[in-house]
Amino acid sequence: METLLTNTIARIYPVDKSLEQAATAHLDNLTKPQGSLARLEDVAKRVYCIQGGQQPLRVDPVRMFTVAGDHGVVEENISLFPQAVTRQMVLNFLQGGAGINVLCRTANITLSVVDAGCVGGPFAPHDKLIDKRLGEGTKNFAKEPAMDRATCIKALCYGIGLATDAMAEGYTTIGIGEMGIGNTTPATALFSHILSLSPQDVAGPGAGASLEGVQHKAAVVAKALQLHAPTLEKADGIDVLATLGGFEIAIMAGIALGAARSGMILMVDGFISTAAYVAARHICPHVDGYAILSHASAEPGYAHVLAALEKQGTKALPLLHLDLRLGEGTGAALAVPLMRSAVNIFNDMATFDSANVSNTPCSHT
Amino acid sequence: METLLTNTIARIYPVDKSLEQAATAHLDNLTKPQGSLARLEDVAKRVYCIQGGQQPLRVDPVRMFTVAGDHGVVEENISLFPQAVTRQMVLNFLQGGAGINVLCRTANITLSVVDAGCVGGPFAPHDKLIDKRLGEGTKNFAKEPAMDRATCIKALCYGIGLATDAMAEGYTTIGIGEMGIGNTTPATALFSHILSLSPQDVAGPGAGASLEGVQHKAAVVAKALQLHAPTLEKADGIDVLATLGGFEIAIMAGIALGAARSGMILMVDGFISTAAYVAARHICPHVDGYAILSHASAEPGYAHVLAALEKQGTKALPLLHLDLRLGEGTGAALAVPLMRSAVNIFNDMATFDSANVSNTPCSHT
Repeated sequence: METLLTNTIARIYPVDKSLEQAATAHLDNLTKPQGSLARLEDVAKRVYCIQGGQQPLRVDPVRMFTVAGDHGVVEENISLFPQAVTRQMVLNFLQGGAGINVLCRTANITLSVVDAGCVGGPFAPHDKLIDKRLGEGTKNFAKEPAMDRATCIKALCYGIGLATDAMAEGYTTIGIGEMGIGNTTPATALFSHILSLSPQDVAGPGAGASLEGVQHKAAVVAKALQLHAPTLEKADGIDVLATLGGFEIAIMAGIALGAARSGMILMVDGFISTAAYVAARHICPHVDGYAILSHASAEPGYAHVLAALEKQGTKALPLLHLDLRLGEGTGAALAVPLMRSAVNIFNDMATFDSANVSNTPCSHT
Repeated sequence: METLLTNTIARIYPVDKSLEQAATAHLDNLTKPQGSLARLEDVAKRVYCIQGGQQPLRVDPVRMFTVAGDHGVVEENISLFPQAVTRQMVLNFLQGGAGINVLCRTANITLSVVDAGCVGGPFAPHDKLIDKRLGEGTKNFAKEPAMDRATCIKALCYGIGLATDAMAEGYTTIGIGEMGIGNTTPATALFSHILSLSPQDVAGPGAGASLEGVQHKAAVVAKALQLHAPTLEKADGIDVLATLGGFEIAIMAGIALGAARSGMILMVDGFISTAAYVAARHICPHVDGYAILSHASAEPGYAHVLAALEKQGTKALPLLHLDLRLGEGTGAALAVPLMRSAVNIFNDMATFDSANVSNTPCSHT
């Protein structure tokens, strides 16, 4: 397993930013005021770099992985809803009734549900379900590491395998979303440690916790970070993820690594999905160029996360701001039509010359 | 003509906001934390009210009207690009090469191009073109009213007719976009007068004017408002639109009135399209309930416009924030997939009961 991981990381190449100039030149020659399609043009340039300047740019087909797992840290009473809801929601995903099902159907996205380790044993086989169980939920990271290093490597390799298989099946874009009662807590811990933020700044109400609940969550994370400080001080990215992460978070991080390795577009969803991306980026910074942040999470701490990423030189401008706080991949699914629009603009708009439209400003200005 | 307009306005009924409670109850019973789909849920509630509580909610089919017209006020050197570009871009729309063509094709929206009065005479017939010419561009409103009241009523009636025809053809949703060199200037004038804003706050760079150009534009508008002050003081909504508007703006305002009269969803685009909506709302405030703001224009003054609308009790939260500054209906086209997602969430998600998902928070919270 470790060899697959090491080889994958070694073969993630930074996207070639020098191509951006050619993409800009093309966009500036289309029949619109320069730069007037703004964020759509940014996306088109990004895809151009990911796809090595090959034209036409492509987004489809798109595959969404909604990865589910349980968390030992729910013992600390950090979640509003009982742990059983993770499992219930996986069944709902399989039956097609959840938010992510509706949004994937609406946007023509193939949905796969991954069991990363929900409490209650394996699910009955289902054609939409991929069994990548790593255990009966993680350990309580307020007391001990969420998982050991070997399990974390296994999770990352599972994720890499999912991305590689998706590429082999012809997918161009991968979305990562999740379900896991309590998982804003490990996400908060990962953001706090990796981006040097305070848990008080990052912790938010998640599925609807009260102010008291949010403060409790922040305190649990702060205490856990203190407990693990000796380990974290000398930890590499894998150890950080093992200590503070979750099964679904680690598999999503693996998918991110695999997508980057395969030159695919990675659509990052909201708070937890971004934590997986940040963890993957901590393991291999080159992941950056392949990731599109879909949606600015409604979690108040997300703004701190974005600011920290920007400070580190990563463009961190999510495409959508809809105050969503559901996860599952819903923000990523909603952003897919914008991605399609961006590449179609690049591929299909007329140039000033071909359309006989004047591109010369008046002399008076 | 005046009778059609009067009758239409008399038959625009406010949407029944009392239905919102039933829509909320339905949404709260779907398998997600309450309110976690945020802005999508707002949209679904709005559509529920517009459609009188009939289920399933519908968005499709969608028709986009891109309305083009020229402006006498270009004499004042307020635009970066020559007036001929309006006409050139109409031909580009008809050939299918502009941004709005690409985005309508991507989102499966039927596009119609309306000539409201471009300089250079009628266009050759084309199956995508609707001839509603009101003249060879408006008069220069820095010197005299942009059009007379009778012409403005004609424009509004043209728009009402377009909306009524669209309803008869089975369309559920109408988008309004535009093309018209110089039209941020009349839009600035309409916003300033109707919403009691200062032209200095509202004027922006449009297609790319310099700071000097923006100040000049604000000064032209301020002077025009002073010139027309005696008229505007006692003007009704029609006179305001006639004095400060444009042919494409007046037709879009008419489409807004017609859409509201027909109980259709109205997708408002960016800066100019919002000016048409604000002008229509000034003529008949009930238009409010039927309009969805698609995109927060990149024009710096747009934030003042939104704040002024909110102050008057209108929900003014655009769905997208992509820094676009193209017009044509591009923002409205991009928001259509979000509308579809919102109604599909309402129509198709499982309830807690049907999916056997627990909706009872833990006792510790």
